Amino acid sequence: MTGKPIFLDLRVRYAETDQMGVVYHSHYLVWCEVGRTELLRQLGTDYATVERAGTRLAVADASLRYHAPARYDDRIRVETTLISVRSRFLTFDYLITNADTGQRLVTARTTLVALDESGRPRAISAGLRGALEAYM
Amino acid sequence: MTGKPIFLDLRVRYAETDQMGVVYHSHYLVWCEVGRTELLRQLGTDYATVERAGTRLAVADASLRYHAPARYDDRIRVETTLISVRSRFLTFDYLITNADTGQRLVTARTTLVALDESGRPRAISAGLRGALEAYM
Amino acid sequence: MTGKPIFLDLRVRYAETDQMGVVYHSHYLVWCEVGRTELLRQLGTDYATVERAGTRLAVADASLRYHAPARYDDRIRVETTLISVRSRFLTFDYLITNADTGQRLVTARTTLVALDESGRPRAISAGLRGALEAYM
Amino acid sequence: MTGKPIFLDLRVRYAETDQMGVVYHSHYLVWCEVGRTELLRQLGTDYATVERAGTRLAVADASLRYHAPARYDDRIRVETTLISVRSRFLTFDYLITNADTGQRLVTARTTLVALDESGRPRAISAGLRGALEAYM
Repeated sequence: MTGKPIFLDLRVRYAETDQMGVVYHSHYLVWCEVGRTELLRQLGTDYATVERAGTRLAVADASLRYHAPARYDDRIRVETTLISVRSRFLTFDYLITNADTGQRLVTARTTLVALDESGRPRAISAGLRGALEAYM
Repeated sequence: MTGKPIFLDLRVRYAETDQMGVVYHSHYLVWCEVGRTELLRQLGTDYATVERAGTRLAVADASLRYHAPARYDDRIRVETTLISVRSRFLTFDYLITNADTGQRLVTARTTLVALDESGRPRAISAGLRGALEAYM
Repeated sequence: MTGKPIFLDLRVRYAETDQMGVVYHSHYLVWCEVGRTELLRQLGTDYATVERAGTRLAVADASLRYHAPARYDDRIRVETTLISVRSRFLTFDYLITNADTGQRLVTARTTLVALDESGRPRAISAGLRGALEAYM
Repeated sequence: MTGKPIFLDLRVRYAETDQMGVVYHSHYLVWCEVGRTELLRQLGTDYATVERAGTRLAVADASLRYHAPARYDDRIRVETTLISVRSRFLTFDYLITNADTGQRLVTARTTLVALDESGRPRAISAGLRGALEAYM
């Protein structure tokens, strides 16, 4: 069982291209993060608040498959789905497409681990976990 | 059978940190690319030349596992190993450690696909393939 | 005489923060570029098209004054004004504010030079220049 | 009266290029920061330690002039000179060249302001100021 996908649109910045004329591959991880931020916002909780309350969500692993390149000024759609909530871990799936043509560009998955302010693993706070499970 | 690992040291830049006080997770993909560039250089061929000769190596998939964080001004060691050469694909493994303590920070793998100047898959040129296989 | 300002809003990405807990200073130049892209779009010409038609606009000089920091997830407003059009040069002013509070964050100016595909200075094409002067 | 210049060499990363085939203009600010870090290190004090001791050096203004482009895999030399030390401000000049050809690429100046941990201006600590003035 997974939550419903959350959509976020953005435009490719010139700074994100490389000399191959396409978006440099590391930037898709940034777009995934923008998608996660939007998902949390739509749940009524925002990550800035989560972090100020003492929980950091750090990326523990990431995998990406690159299907087709994004180009400067393309409109991009990031579709983020929360697929698993455990006591210390959250897993998100991403589908990144060209918002105008629908072409699939990148599929990705990241798992995040909850850390306290010293960087030690901790349980996700009850409030955040409740919001995430309600959404799921 | 894999080639011997190639080492490249770098220092963490302030620009690479985020407000968690550690290196933002997408930058490790950049360090992997720096490791690949160094591996090709040590083989006597450099990627700038490969690209000018009409072959682009684009990342087709990437996976990263984050074990411990790197911090500002840490000395980092990127150990890059070419683990597979096929007609159109190269696969590299990376071990990123703290160069002073030896602590393991990130392990990663990327597969690159050879493309021509229009972005269509092509075979890796005979010259590059020969150099890579000799190294393997 | 200057053109009317063009507004573009964006949100601060986690990737844009540094360990000081604020946006790393180089990213404001990226936001200026996003503002320029939007200005050209609102003039009915887009930079991707300009570039495909053989004119590159490269930054020749830039100056920035940092008044107050932007933080993660802040809504940012980039106000871009074209202040000068010469045969080979365009100058833009930027006012970057917090979109919610109106607080002034950064003021900046960049001058761009028109280059041909080999990187040699050239005159701005008649079409682009006409559109820019009409806007002015 | 200014201090003697400090040199730092680096190689252009693929991630630093853009679709114009040259280094994207904001990255030179990152290289300036790398130059400052090296200057402080050669003075026997490192910025990580300065920051842990409660002083943050934030960029208050920056100006850059772009003379010629850097390209992928170029060896770059960053020459950093401390040109002024006041109670709350430091000003640095930068000359960025191609390390192989000596070609001048970018000249820049940044002024940094000392802040305490809450982001309020403060005097540069006596220890750091002493080291900087000895070097001057």
